[in-house]
Amino acid sequence: MSILVVGSVAYDNLDTPHGKRDDVLGGAATHFSTAASFFTPVHVVGVVGSDFDNAHLEFLMSKGIDVSGIKVVEGGKTFRWTGKYFDDINHRETLDTQLGVFATFDPELSEQHAEEPFLFLANIHPSLQLKVLDQMKEPKLVAMDTMNLWIDTTREDLQKVIERVDMMFINDEEARMLTGDLNVSVAAKKIMSWGPKVLVIKRGEYGALLYTEDSVFAAPGLPLSDVVDPTGAGDTFAGGFLGYVAKTGDISKATLRRAVICGSVMASFQVEDFGLDRLRELTTQEIDKRFGIFKELAHFEAAPLF
Amino acid sequence: MSILVVGSVAYDNLDTPHGKRDDVLGGAATHFSTAASFFTPVHVVGVVGSDFDNAHLEFLMSKGIDVSGIKVVEGGKTFRWTGKYFDDINHRETLDTQLGVFATFDPELSEQHAEEPFLFLANIHPSLQLKVLDQMKEPKLVAMDTMNLWIDTTREDLQKVIERVDMMFINDEEARMLTGDLNVSVAAKKIMSWGPKVLVIKRGEYGALLYTEDSVFAAPGLPLSDVVDPTGAGDTFAGGFLGYVAKTGDISKATLRRAVICGSVMASFQVEDFGLDRLRELTTQEIDKRFGIFKELAHFEAAPLF
Repeated sequence: MSILVVGSVAYDNLDTPHGKRDDVLGGAATHFSTAASFFTPVHVVGVVGSDFDNAHLEFLMSKGIDVSGIKVVEGGKTFRWTGKYFDDINHRETLDTQLGVFATFDPELSEQHAEEPFLFLANIHPSLQLKVLDQMKEPKLVAMDTMNLWIDTTREDLQKVIERVDMMFINDEEARMLTGDLNVSVAAKKIMSWGPKVLVIKRGEYGALLYTEDSVFAAPGLPLSDVVDPTGAGDTFAGGFLGYVAKTGDISKATLRRAVICGSVMASFQVEDFGLDRLRELTTQEIDKRFGIFKELAHFEAAPLF
Repeated sequence: MSILVVGSVAYDNLDTPHGKRDDVLGGAATHFSTAASFFTPVHVVGVVGSDFDNAHLEFLMSKGIDVSGIKVVEGGKTFRWTGKYFDDINHRETLDTQLGVFATFDPELSEQHAEEPFLFLANIHPSLQLKVLDQMKEPKLVAMDTMNLWIDTTREDLQKVIERVDMMFINDEEARMLTGDLNVSVAAKKIMSWGPKVLVIKRGEYGALLYTEDSVFAAPGLPLSDVVDPTGAGDTFAGGFLGYVAKTGDISKATLRRAVICGSVMASFQVEDFGLDRLRELTTQEIDKRFGIFKELAHFEAAPLF
């Protein structure tokens, strides 16, 4: 099955211990769709300015991604994020955010897009997420992401979105903020009581927790000696996860657990280079091989202990 | 095979979100030996004052632990740690440390103890760890723990200990401190280049990483809704780990991986109540069952993705 993603398409200016890069192709929808495209067809709805290099659209199309929903605003500027990563690559600071044409983003879905079976609401204003939801015909599965900004400022709309989705991606810090519970397990149960049947709590280098109605799965993070650029790792994770679920068309526990690993695999590649560069030449053989590395990383044999 | 542990036997005064408790039986050697005793015979070398309640020694003996190496200093006071845990139970503050008789602890091993096949050097002054090592006849396996204090203040002796052990337990923060490397994988490789063939990096609620010469294993932490008292969790982990290894007498990759889970299982029980209380009535059936819960927590099936 195919996926519709609604979210940002952006330029990133990055300052990292591995160097500086400007005008790097970024944005949640871009990262998500590129990762998901390895598994299933993806349609993107977003907006860019006339400063957006056509080569980027061509790259997305080369991955089989439908970019007909990316609106180009003549004379407008593409959303631009400027950030600095510290020596401890897990810490970053936003230096500048220029919303540009994203400030007036008002997603209107084509008839075809409104009929997509899978929907991923990337991290955009909750009122826009609601607007997208209202336009969808009968999606089989809706997943969402969000961020601390909306938890702080737009809590009421955010709550409405959460109550209408099947699946939510959130990091542990945001889960604590959202619920007021310091314990992640308690926070997870509270969020699921609001609606989502599947909850993925992202924990950066520590991996992710997958909560379903009757079980929890702890996926490891792959210990990497060298992380070049973590920007977009969360969206890449969501893309790998949902891409695999959409490909199988199944939400069994076994599939969801493998999906967490697919997400982790894609994110582990993505952070190896700036922006999407590592994913540009990535092959399905490499993905399969790294899935095996995760299997080996997490594997132990049961045996009677006594 | 049996284990000799040299380390602190202590009283803890605990202030936690679950209440306050004074005179709680604690200390690294106590936690370690209690956890390990479920798997294998343990001998403790330590020191207490005459204020130490005999009932505690009787408890350890009831677990089959040899306490003949615990010296009672007449008129002396037992090591006492006073600490406060915050609402986020992962954060604590040391309010007071009274070394008492531990300040002049000078471990002298009996002939029998010097011949033990497994040695665990709990977190004591590195010069004492060296002194114990010098007294051992031909241990088959030596493992060590340490802490930030010795990394800061006694680096030279600490380095000598590290170079002489087979196995080291350390938490991620300490691994970074010890090596100056912010990346845990890089830090792990550096520590192993100094000597230890097996390195376990403890990551608190996130689980642990096991590094051996040719592989890495990521053990999950069990998501717990309610942590009462994490004091001694690291020593309990080491006790479960080394207890299982000593029981099997084998250091194959499969055994070491199961050992990490045994350590995690024991620590997951230990934090459920104050001090050692949860381990007092714990059964091997409960340990086996929780091992199964860890197996389920970490399990996913490999399958061709494409």
